[in-house]
Amino acid sequence: MRVLVLHGPNLNLLGRRETGIYGNETLADIDARLQELASELGVDLECFQSNSEAALIERLHGAPGTVDAVVFNPAGFTHYSIALRDAVAAVGLPVVEVHLTNIHAREEFRHRSVIAPVAAGQISGFGTAGYLLGLRAAVELVSRGKMSRA
Amino acid sequence: MRVLVLHGPNLNLLGRRETGIYGNETLADIDARLQELASELGVDLECFQSNSEAALIERLHGAPGTVDAVVFNPAGFTHYSIALRDAVAAVGLPVVEVHLTNIHAREEFRHRSVIAPVAAGQISGFGTAGYLLGLRAAVELVSRGKMSRA
Amino acid sequence: MRVLVLHGPNLNLLGRRETGIYGNETLADIDARLQELASELGVDLECFQSNSEAALIERLHGAPGTVDAVVFNPAGFTHYSIALRDAVAAVGLPVVEVHLTNIHAREEFRHRSVIAPVAAGQISGFGTAGYLLGLRAAVELVSRGKMSRA
Amino acid sequence: MRVLVLHGPNLNLLGRRETGIYGNETLADIDARLQELASELGVDLECFQSNSEAALIERLHGAPGTVDAVVFNPAGFTHYSIALRDAVAAVGLPVVEVHLTNIHAREEFRHRSVIAPVAAGQISGFGTAGYLLGLRAAVELVSRGKMSRA
Amino acid sequence: MRVLVLHGPNLNLLGRRETGIYGNETLADIDARLQELASELGVDLECFQSNSEAALIERLHGAPGTVDAVVFNPAGFTHYSIALRDAVAAVGLPVVEVHLTNIHAREEFRHRSVIAPVAAGQISGFGTAGYLLGLRAAVELVSRGKMSRA
Amino acid sequence: MRVLVLHGPNLNLLGRRETGIYGNETLADIDARLQELASELGVDLECFQSNSEAALIERLHGAPGTVDAVVFNPAGFTHYSIALRDAVAAVGLPVVEVHLTNIHAREEFRHRSVIAPVAAGQISGFGTAGYLLGLRAAVELVSRGKMSRA
Amino acid sequence: MRVLVLHGPNLNLLGRRETGIYGNETLADIDARLQELASELGVDLECFQSNSEAALIERLHGAPGTVDAVVFNPAGFTHYSIALRDAVAAVGLPVVEVHLTNIHAREEFRHRSVIAPVAAGQISGFGTAGYLLGLRAAVELVSRGKMSRA
Amino acid sequence: MRVLVLHGPNLNLLGRRETGIYGNETLADIDARLQELASELGVDLECFQSNSEAALIERLHGAPGTVDAVVFNPAGFTHYSIALRDAVAAVGLPVVEVHLTNIHAREEFRHRSVIAPVAAGQISGFGTAGYLLGLRAAVELVSRGKMSRA
Amino acid sequence: MRVLVLHGPNLNLLGRRETGIYGNETLADIDARLQELASELGVDLECFQSNSEAALIERLHGAPGTVDAVVFNPAGFTHYSIALRDAVAAVGLPVVEVHLTNIHAREEFRHRSVIAPVAAGQISGFGTAGYLLGLRAAVELVSRGKMSRA
Amino acid sequence: MRVLVLHGPNLNLLGRRETGIYGNETLADIDARLQELASELGVDLECFQSNSEAALIERLHGAPGTVDAVVFNPAGFTHYSIALRDAVAAVGLPVVEVHLTNIHAREEFRHRSVIAPVAAGQISGFGTAGYLLGLRAAVELVSRGKMSRA
Amino acid sequence: MRVLVLHGPNLNLLGRRETGIYGNETLADIDARLQELASELGVDLECFQSNSEAALIERLHGAPGTVDAVVFNPAGFTHYSIALRDAVAAVGLPVVEVHLTNIHAREEFRHRSVIAPVAAGQISGFGTAGYLLGLRAAVELVSRGKMSRA
Amino acid sequence: MRVLVLHGPNLNLLGRRETGIYGNETLADIDARLQELASELGVDLECFQSNSEAALIERLHGAPGTVDAVVFNPAGFTHYSIALRDAVAAVGLPVVEVHLTNIHAREEFRHRSVIAPVAAGQISGFGTAGYLLGLRAAVELVSRGKMSRA
Repeated sequence: MRVLVLHGPNLNLLGRRETGIYGNETLADIDARLQELASELGVDLECFQSNSEAALIERLHGAPGTVDAVVFNPAGFTHYSIALRDAVAAVGLPVVEVHLTNIHAREEFRHRSVIAPVAAGQISGFGTAGYLLGLRAAVELVSRGKMSRA
Repeated sequence: MRVLVLHGPNLNLLGRRETGIYGNETLADIDARLQELASELGVDLECFQSNSEAALIERLHGAPGTVDAVVFNPAGFTHYSIALRDAVAAVGLPVVEVHLTNIHAREEFRHRSVIAPVAAGQISGFGTAGYLLGLRAAVELVSRGKMSRA
Repeated sequence: MRVLVLHGPNLNLLGRRETGIYGNETLADIDARLQELASELGVDLECFQSNSEAALIERLHGAPGTVDAVVFNPAGFTHYSIALRDAVAAVGLPVVEVHLTNIHAREEFRHRSVIAPVAAGQISGFGTAGYLLGLRAAVELVSRGKMSRA
Repeated sequence: MRVLVLHGPNLNLLGRRETGIYGNETLADIDARLQELASELGVDLECFQSNSEAALIERLHGAPGTVDAVVFNPAGFTHYSIALRDAVAAVGLPVVEVHLTNIHAREEFRHRSVIAPVAAGQISGFGTAGYLLGLRAAVELVSRGKMSRA
Repeated sequence: MRVLVLHGPNLNLLGRRETGIYGNETLADIDARLQELASELGVDLECFQSNSEAALIERLHGAPGTVDAVVFNPAGFTHYSIALRDAVAAVGLPVVEVHLTNIHAREEFRHRSVIAPVAAGQISGFGTAGYLLGLRAAVELVSRGKMSRA
Repeated sequence: MRVLVLHGPNLNLLGRRETGIYGNETLADIDARLQELASELGVDLECFQSNSEAALIERLHGAPGTVDAVVFNPAGFTHYSIALRDAVAAVGLPVVEVHLTNIHAREEFRHRSVIAPVAAGQISGFGTAGYLLGLRAAVELVSRGKMSRA
Repeated sequence: MRVLVLHGPNLNLLGRRETGIYGNETLADIDARLQELASELGVDLECFQSNSEAALIERLHGAPGTVDAVVFNPAGFTHYSIALRDAVAAVGLPVVEVHLTNIHAREEFRHRSVIAPVAAGQISGFGTAGYLLGLRAAVELVSRGKMSRA
Repeated sequence: MRVLVLHGPNLNLLGRRETGIYGNETLADIDARLQELASELGVDLECFQSNSEAALIERLHGAPGTVDAVVFNPAGFTHYSIALRDAVAAVGLPVVEVHLTNIHAREEFRHRSVIAPVAAGQISGFGTAGYLLGLRAAVELVSRGKMSRA
Repeated sequence: MRVLVLHGPNLNLLGRRETGIYGNETLADIDARLQELASELGVDLECFQSNSEAALIERLHGAPGTVDAVVFNPAGFTHYSIALRDAVAAVGLPVVEVHLTNIHAREEFRHRSVIAPVAAGQISGFGTAGYLLGLRAAVELVSRGKMSRA
Repeated sequence: MRVLVLHGPNLNLLGRRETGIYGNETLADIDARLQELASELGVDLECFQSNSEAALIERLHGAPGTVDAVVFNPAGFTHYSIALRDAVAAVGLPVVEVHLTNIHAREEFRHRSVIAPVAAGQISGFGTAGYLLGLRAAVELVSRGKMSRA
Repeated sequence: MRVLVLHGPNLNLLGRRETGIYGNETLADIDARLQELASELGVDLECFQSNSEAALIERLHGAPGTVDAVVFNPAGFTHYSIALRDAVAAVGLPVVEVHLTNIHAREEFRHRSVIAPVAAGQISGFGTAGYLLGLRAAVELVSRGKMSRA
Repeated sequence: MRVLVLHGPNLNLLGRRETGIYGNETLADIDARLQELASELGVDLECFQSNSEAALIERLHGAPGTVDAVVFNPAGFTHYSIALRDAVAAVGLPVVEVHLTNIHAREEFRHRSVIAPVAAGQISGFGTAGYLLGLRAAVELVSRGKMSRA
């Protein structure tokens, strides 16, 4: 099983800025923890961060045929990028939406995700642990899908 | 570590009605899977379902001192029960909000959770697997809390 | 044919308080008139009133297999109880929503029914006669359903 | 007792188009069933369909003195024709609003009726049977009114 | 100077129904009072009532070249008939909007006039006297226009 | 008969600024035209302008017993001064609201008048002629009131 | 004079949880202070707390005939329980709504009370002292009512 | 192939009034250009204008069986006539909605079309050329439909 | 202890106008009752009424150092005067907001107080008795503050 | 005449994904059909697709002087990219907005185009044929512009 | 060049109250710093503070002919005083709106300025330095205006 | 002191297109004027323009440690780019938001800036001079910050 982890804009700053909100782990730390869990679960994992909407769209376009599921933290794009939403809808893979913070407990404009209605599900508020839960969810979705096709 | 799992209204019907939407597993099946994972994680687990807002409020009131975290699927109460929200806020334990379906992809009125702003985080859309993710999240939150107190 | 009549909160006060709005008939009077019409139509009728959301949910849960249709006046719950709505949707029986007053001619917040989108239909504004129309509608729905299954 | 049944725009197509939504009965079938029930109840019945707002307004203007109540399906006019609403309010007869479908379960814009606040009550969602319930409701309203005047 | 007075839907009932709200004068009474004032002011007056949106639109289409201004009570059409608004805008004559009642003191939906933004001005709340004020306003607008063209 | 004309804030600038919108007549010109019509109609007229909400409130407080009606252009206060609205409601005299421009054809925030629901009626859009119509309306209202008390 | 004090959901936790917001007094402390003032004012006082909407509704149903007024802190139910509102409206006694905190200074959703429009008045923001003010208000309302009936 | 062109209210004034907005071509000019293109495309064309909502509804009712598609400029009815919308939905033919002006660049209330959700598509902003594009679109839709049925 | 009572616009009319709504007591009567209670509670009381926003702002500015708390009925200013709100926030004294009527049961626009979020609390709906409750609340707030500073 | 066709994000997937919604034609197919029509109309055509907002903005910047008009399908950017809107407004060429699907019949958030108010017009709902209509519209706009300049 | 600086309500308290938010400088300090910069820039400066809307309106009325530009901090009036807005629009001088705090980062109701649409521009969030920037902006606007008139 | 000036999308067109709105200065002109003032103020200045959201985000990421403050005109991104907002919030430097035009006086959607709540302040409406004011504001903010750290 192959899973793609996509990190959206500003996540390259993790662990270096606003650590009061987002904690001390860097993106590299998170990717390492994800790789560790991936090994344990027998998953081939690829991680990709970009501040560019277009780069994320194109990485999603390349996903079908190369991975079985996507774990996606769209960060600031969550709330307005209908282009990303359309890309998620188009690729037809299970996409697990992950947020470090509980977006439903923050500013009003962060409560709405334009990605969520086309994602398989959403995990928010558990900090970096949310990515690990997201990977497990992705594995579950792919396994279940395989069973229902078997 | 002790964790309480709270199931809200109508969840006693799981696996018996609307199986097209909610799947074939019964609440007993879910509780059994949760107990299995709890054993694996070294967690004492208690499960409780009620269709009564008051019964859920009072079970939450009894939580501090008897459990370390709560996994809570408020079901229909999610969208209006400010009384339950106040109970969640009052008990001061980490509460993980779980939904079987992706509430952000359903009717408009299901997008807003009055519980979410006082929960630690929210997991929605992964079916019964969401409860297992919720239990893992709860364990993570309690462990992290213990470390930060150590 | 068996029909369940459910009366929601405060309806136990009918005929005793606010008679200017709701008329002089008591709930017992209404139930008697319903029984009379039920006999005439060859219907087994059961009537149940509760001020408790949970009690109404559970009475709905018990409906499939014991009755063929429900006549339901959700009263104050009409406008916010998504838990009741989910129960109505779950039981899969024809549910006829009845209101004594014309809710569309009262305060703005009474115009919206969260039950209506999952009910078979709605009758409002005809006072206690609305229950009798509701019983006729329920009988019609069951008969039609039987025919379409025949 | 005399009752006028008013059918609004597009209802002349009943049974001929969109039968999946509106059923196979034609308007003539409905009028025949209404006449049958009217005979049974001792009611003189007149039925009138128009696609013209003005024609419906003028038929309502002619109602006082010639009929005792009106059963009215305003169809598409339901949601915007304040001119028809004013006509209903002006004639001062009991007007029973009837809809074939459950308008509260359809598109958002169909939930609001500008007629309802000046109608005696509303019946929606029971298909062509709704007209028969509407006729019974009209008879009830007139009888009750006579009693209260007696 | 020639002025057209247009009366919208239901105004033919004036003085005959809802006299508590609209007073005892009939439309003929109002037209007579308008003719009297018109004579005094040296105005040729034509009065036209219709319950038909199309008839009012077409009477407006015929106005340029035959009259110098219009006094228009759009009644129920006030709040939604964009077709009438477009007709008012198209004819390019001064149109004085008149309402018998103070529409800003009635139901919320009566506060908005879709006609007003293309009318020269609006007079509301003075009962039948509002028509006389409207005629004076029309005369003023035409005179002023003539002066500015002179 | 005695009538008070109240001019709200910035109207002292009439004819001196923004003449493109408000015309060339000064407030003194308007008051002179009003006095002329008042003489013709046998009315004692008093005119008062203030940029102060408090001064206008207090002039309204002094109105009962000294005048029979008020013609009031609240200008900018129209859209927010609930204190003025309460004063208008309190004095219990007929108050005719006048606006030089057609407020319903200007910026969205000018469409709503908080004064209108407690005024007898509103005249807008006829420039300075609107004051003359307002005076006629006031006279009509007082005369009618006297007749109904006679 | 007899007064009923009703405490809504979660108020049983007072003084034990979230003391930073709600202070250190327990519900028993408040009831004791209320009893003390009641004695001083010659009032028979009964206090009742419940987390159950149904229990509060039924206690309100039992109020007429046994008490003269109610002091009611609906807590979380304040903002959505139309069933409780209908109960308050039905019992026809003066009901004084009390809130410990200033609900108008908290989250947006707490600004609206569905109970307030049918209560006699509302007191919010004075902590536990608000109950004592509420009792005084209730006594005042009953006394005034008695006088007006005398 | 047969196509019906429907022109809504006020379009009979084209080329005669408001030429600054709508251009100098008359409706007859447009119909002539449409006929020319129709000949070129081998289409039988019928054009119909009415200011009457009812007349347009009835012309739509007559369309199935006599034409293969409709090009429809609903003009002012675009924004509120749900009766026309229902007629469009009922007839089951491809309907191409055309607007002379770019309705999305005009007043806010013109941005919403109640017809669009049941039309095949919408063309706006190209002046009279929009009708020609609409005719081509209609031909395309019918041809494609025939192919898919072949 | 010193307390300032501020009465907003139109309250000078109390007992003289709209007595059906506001009762027969004059402002002097209320001030006398307040002085009586103040004596009883050992409070130095000053009362001040103004129809001027500026005068009220400036009286608030003078409050710190001369009084310990304020009882304030902002009347019509309640709903829009952010200048007054800023003054209340700036003076840093406990301010008790009082309304004679239950503002939450009146027109929609009266439900919102822009003052409330910076007041200590709000008392509404108890008529002139509300001022006495307000004085008691102010005394309580000052005493409590003194204790917490002791 | 030279025309630029701009395709927005995700359109590179056409014919390869979601063919149920968007059909089987690839973007290359569409461009070929456009070239064919361009030849027929004597137009030099350039086609450009990008998933990057910046790339589309910059291609628009390069348009003046190199092309006479633009046919633009902004896809997901339609609903939020004010940066693209500003680019369209800045270049001052006729821009024809094209959508494959009828955006007015899809999710609420797709009804609003931030591009439309600065485009010449909009064509939506005719699938890939919409591009051909768009090219014809562009040619028409340029020709008309040339004539008006001639 | 002459510039008027207008300070709105409560600004007389600067440096004396809420220094945590507004800093320690008094209004006199600010005026002194402004005078210093004015000297440097060769500007005659006049400063005026008032808590009275009327006083500010009248000072604005007096501005044309005596000053060339206005620097205006409307403080609390910013958000509702349409009377002040109308005064700003009427005087026809460049008016620079200044706010000490970043109003766009405070409460929702402070985000909207009714003055801004008629001001030349707005400067907010730079504390007392904002006044100095405002003075520079005013000088720039006047100089530019002079140049364009030269 | 080092300051970064960021210019958002379409600003590279300044002075070349829409000069009626944005003036004749090119971006190079503005940068030259900024450099001149920077020299005068002893500031090292860097200017950067991009039409790419990602490029702007990444330039902001590189700011801490290389510059002391940022002057930022987000242009079209102002109103929706939460990704840019998050970048501004993350870098923790004073950011001065600048707009050439008075965005509060333009289209409704331009009134809201998603950047403003995390910027230090906002300057809008003074054309290219606004950049110079912005540079002065940035210098002030850095100086003040240094003082408060000293």
